[in-house]
Amino acid sequence: MIIDSVDLFYASMPEVTLEADGSQDALLVRVTADGHIGWGECESSPLTSIAAFVAPRSHGVCQPVQASVIGERIDSPDDIARMANGIRRNSMDLLQAVHMWSGIEIALWDLLGRVREEPVWRLLGYSESYPKVPYASMLMGITPQDTLDRARTAAQSGYRAIKFGWGTYGTGSSRSDADHVAAAREGLGSDATLLIDAGQIWVDDVKSAAERIAALENARVTWLEEPFLPDAFTAHADLASRMRSVALAGGEGAHTARMATNLIDFGRVNFIQVDTGRIGGIGPAKAVADHAVARNVSYVNHTFTSHLALSASLQPFAGLRDHRMCEYPVEPKQLAVDLTTSHLLPDSNGEVRAPDAPGLGISVDVGALAPYLRSVEIRIDNSPIFTSPEADFGTAGARNVI
Amino acid sequence: MIIDSVDLFYASMPEVTLEADGSQDALLVRVTADGHIGWGECESSPLTSIAAFVAPRSHGVCQPVQASVIGERIDSPDDIARMANGIRRNSMDLLQAVHMWSGIEIALWDLLGRVREEPVWRLLGYSESYPKVPYASMLMGITPQDTLDRARTAAQSGYRAIKFGWGTYGTGSSRSDADHVAAAREGLGSDATLLIDAGQIWVDDVKSAAERIAALENARVTWLEEPFLPDAFTAHADLASRMRSVALAGGEGAHTARMATNLIDFGRVNFIQVDTGRIGGIGPAKAVADHAVARNVSYVNHTFTSHLALSASLQPFAGLRDHRMCEYPVEPKQLAVDLTTSHLLPDSNGEVRAPDAPGLGISVDVGALAPYLRSVEIRIDNSPIFTSPEADFGTAGARNVI
Repeated sequence: MIIDSVDLFYASMPEVTLEADGSQDALLVRVTADGHIGWGECESSPLTSIAAFVAPRSHGVCQPVQASVIGERIDSPDDIARMANGIRRNSMDLLQAVHMWSGIEIALWDLLGRVREEPVWRLLGYSESYPKVPYASMLMGITPQDTLDRARTAAQSGYRAIKFGWGTYGTGSSRSDADHVAAAREGLGSDATLLIDAGQIWVDDVKSAAERIAALENARVTWLEEPFLPDAFTAHADLASRMRSVALAGGEGAHTARMATNLIDFGRVNFIQVDTGRIGGIGPAKAVADHAVARNVSYVNHTFTSHLALSASLQPFAGLRDHRMCEYPVEPKQLAVDLTTSHLLPDSNGEVRAPDAPGLGISVDVGALAPYLRSVEIRIDNSPIFTSPEADFGTAGARNVI
Repeated sequence: MIIDSVDLFYASMPEVTLEADGSQDALLVRVTADGHIGWGECESSPLTSIAAFVAPRSHGVCQPVQASVIGERIDSPDDIARMANGIRRNSMDLLQAVHMWSGIEIALWDLLGRVREEPVWRLLGYSESYPKVPYASMLMGITPQDTLDRARTAAQSGYRAIKFGWGTYGTGSSRSDADHVAAAREGLGSDATLLIDAGQIWVDDVKSAAERIAALENARVTWLEEPFLPDAFTAHADLASRMRSVALAGGEGAHTARMATNLIDFGRVNFIQVDTGRIGGIGPAKAVADHAVARNVSYVNHTFTSHLALSASLQPFAGLRDHRMCEYPVEPKQLAVDLTTSHLLPDSNGEVRAPDAPGLGISVDVGALAPYLRSVEIRIDNSPIFTSPEADFGTAGARNVI
């Protein structure tokens, strides 16, 4: 098959707020090859990624993403890897390229799986899709009492694992943070898994992070996520050496497989969190999963958007029975819900798994998406280089105006 | 002073080819604050960077660059650092943001230096601007005889240091590569400094790179640049351990200071090459220079475009007397020459230095730039969110359409 077109659909909620909720907009990717279709989703700034797809080239290794995709052959996973190498070379100096490519790469796996009538996880070499324990992500409360109330509500909703973070955590005193963490544990009860997300708040300040360890260990927190910037390896390793029962987690911002494996090898994280919509798609995410297995580190998906993104993010570790935790978008915006007709709902055990269905096993709801679509037009020297596809999906954008 | 406007000027040659020559286009940045002006330049895809400046926000930590710049106070270097922290936080998930911000950051230093009537290197704490030895970058020839001829020509032009790379190097046999390297040394004569740039060609294949070491050492090559991907730390360190007289160089793709310092600490490079137009500007580049001094590693600028970019890239290590090498754009496209009225020409010793003049000490040639300007218009839902400033620079782009 030959890739005929890549159509980019920018959708957003009518209002996009400043809350740290990535489900407020989406960049959907539809790839067509010889009449076959695959869907993917980027986890990135939609307009900037569209620009990375169509930008006029700057030089030989600063070419737009489309230069390495349109007209390429897609018959096997090797073809996807070949295109990924092409992007890495031809778009070496175009930083945003990998975020754009991630959605295309996911769509190519979906397309290939549909054509072969195999789930993507089987194309990756797994023989089974094991259930995962979804964890709910919540904002830390304003006061410890807020946090306690939220934790109680979360525990009543049936989640066995809850992550608290952002909000006030890390911005005040370590005493206040300790009160929040203790409140979260009290609200959850003794059995649930408690995770804490610091959202890079201490940059590379090991001392500030280390002051929180005792409270985290007293509350039997499983992991402390992103205490520092993702490339502050020395700070991570230093903090890890001071922890006994709590582990470090991180990796959601990785835009190469090595950024994630370096965080394991040099930063000593024990949970590596990968967003397939940023790291270059499912292929590099699977490479990280393989490395995690070899290093006895747990792979965890990072997902905050739709169930198309959730299925894509489950594929790379679907076959790893012992890698149990799964980030699950608990309160996504309506856009992210409406975007697909199928959803990955927890089973009777409260667990989710990558579907046993061709490709990603998720159907995009074309009709429901229409009201959210935003129309983009980019003109250079008065000629259009990108025009959004029509809402009826009958005409393609990038295809016609290369 | 308050930042009133940031104007983005996309200029390019009439034809942009596939050669690995970054001087074929430019994204110039003009910042205005209380009537004062500063100029900077991004080393990145112009359209994609413009999109990163104006993109509708996706959520609280995926905001466009303009959200952290327009209306901000700029009175001191601390204000620049504060804005850099703001970008890092507010645009955490917008990958291209740092490439866009780099040009703005440089313009802010230029503005501040002009207002204080001090060169930027003095604002950075240096008391003197030391001369650097410019090296010329050339493509490896098609045949060893080509390479020999090019080396002879380069030696006759007076450069005391020459870098060969890209082209065929690394793509054929190690025997052929050895012939090219020997030819380069023969053409240069025994005194000139010879540098070799592999352009990431071996990805992370240490064996292929190691096969080239003997030829490099026989030809007394000073550094082997970018044998691998920039985050392949283990491969770098492994190769470094096999080298005796030749050293490793790299870092031009770093888009955080830590990407560069990690390449020193974990990859064991001995020459760290920083492009201020990508790493976030002059502030983080200076942080890398400080780290290089502490680690006994040499700082080298990466510059392939205009003399505005060259001055910006010299500032972070202007005061380091013993960090002697300077990448110098030898055959830039006419656009990069015309862009400024002032140029940093080698002195009677064949050496260049950051100018002892306010700001970057470089004047942008507004009139000469006009024929190269490309007009960009970005519309979302039929409303313009970016329109290029007019060629006469009389009206501003981003300012009017936020």
